[in-house]
Amino acid sequence: MQGGRTQVSSSLLAETLGVSDAQVRKDLGYLGNLGHPGIGYAIPELIRAIRRTLGIDREWNAALVGVGNLARALLHYRGFMARGFHVAALFDSDPAKVGQELGDLRIHPVEEMAGVIAATHCELGLLCVPSDASQAIANAMVAAGVKGLLNFAPGVLQVPPGISVVSVDLTVQLEQLAFLVQLNDQGAAE
Amino acid sequence: MQGGRTQVSSSLLAETLGVSDAQVRKDLGYLGNLGHPGIGYAIPELIRAIRRTLGIDREWNAALVGVGNLARALLHYRGFMARGFHVAALFDSDPAKVGQELGDLRIHPVEEMAGVIAATHCELGLLCVPSDASQAIANAMVAAGVKGLLNFAPGVLQVPPGISVVSVDLTVQLEQLAFLVQLNDQGAAE
Repeated sequence: MQGGRTQVSSSLLAETLGVSDAQVRKDLGYLGNLGHPGIGYAIPELIRAIRRTLGIDREWNAALVGVGNLARALLHYRGFMARGFHVAALFDSDPAKVGQELGDLRIHPVEEMAGVIAATHCELGLLCVPSDASQAIANAMVAAGVKGLLNFAPGVLQVPPGISVVSVDLTVQLEQLAFLVQLNDQGAAE
Repeated sequence: MQGGRTQVSSSLLAETLGVSDAQVRKDLGYLGNLGHPGIGYAIPELIRAIRRTLGIDREWNAALVGVGNLARALLHYRGFMARGFHVAALFDSDPAKVGQELGDLRIHPVEEMAGVIAATHCELGLLCVPSDASQAIANAMVAAGVKGLLNFAPGVLQVPPGISVVSVDLTVQLEQLAFLVQLNDQGAAE
């Protein structure tokens, strides 16, 4: 919240998010007994509870594999640092990229993954490689001790139990948008 | 499906996707009466039904605003073209970028949005601009006739009724991953 506000009501949160008051109260109820009748939520308390629940009241180091345009975009993504995520290691299989520096990070060959990931305490992995390479790279990252993978390549990764995967398939997001636009067009035509 | 397969069972789909058979049958039931008892689904029929329902049995032109690393990554994203999405117009507010060519597209100034979007029949917009610019650019795209926005900037866009927005906040995806990893750690510790 901006403008020096210290409290917020469920109805203002609901309006801002485009959901119902009841949904806001129900969702925030999972975090504990945070609402104050007649006042709403104390913003600092709410932020602490959300960050604790999401596991983002701490720092996370991430290793990134595949240093192309997407990787450069991610490295410049201002939100990551602000929320405690640090890209702490870079890898690429292209010998022409290995040894180059990006910001204050050197690009390592994928063969050094085990040693570098252990040394930099990376628990998360960002997979910015093409689909045909993603499973092999995922296997190598898991073997090196990474616990969670953010996968930008289309396709489903097979990982051992205890390893988490979040997939960001940008084509799927675009298809979701096309679906919504089509629904709206049909609604307007009826 | 690969390998020349022409039919697929709900159990194979379920296994591949990591969901239950019942979920697959229920979800695909929304597309019509596609399952054949004892055989499963005929793959070409299934693909046609899914593409029709999602609005991706047609071509969509998209205008992209903000030509940085993310934009370059999107322009090289092989999945888009294959699924009928074409980036047909590029815009940037930086005079140093305007006039440059990327692939076979020239970067236009944002002031030309209305004319160029009409001429290129763009119904979708890809917002690759910083958060502080995203609402103004969204307004301009909607005024130019765009029906749906894929927004990569953090924050909530306000759009008129009938306009669809899908947000891809990469920090949120990373937070979701951290949350899953933390859940797994807690499970392992208990």
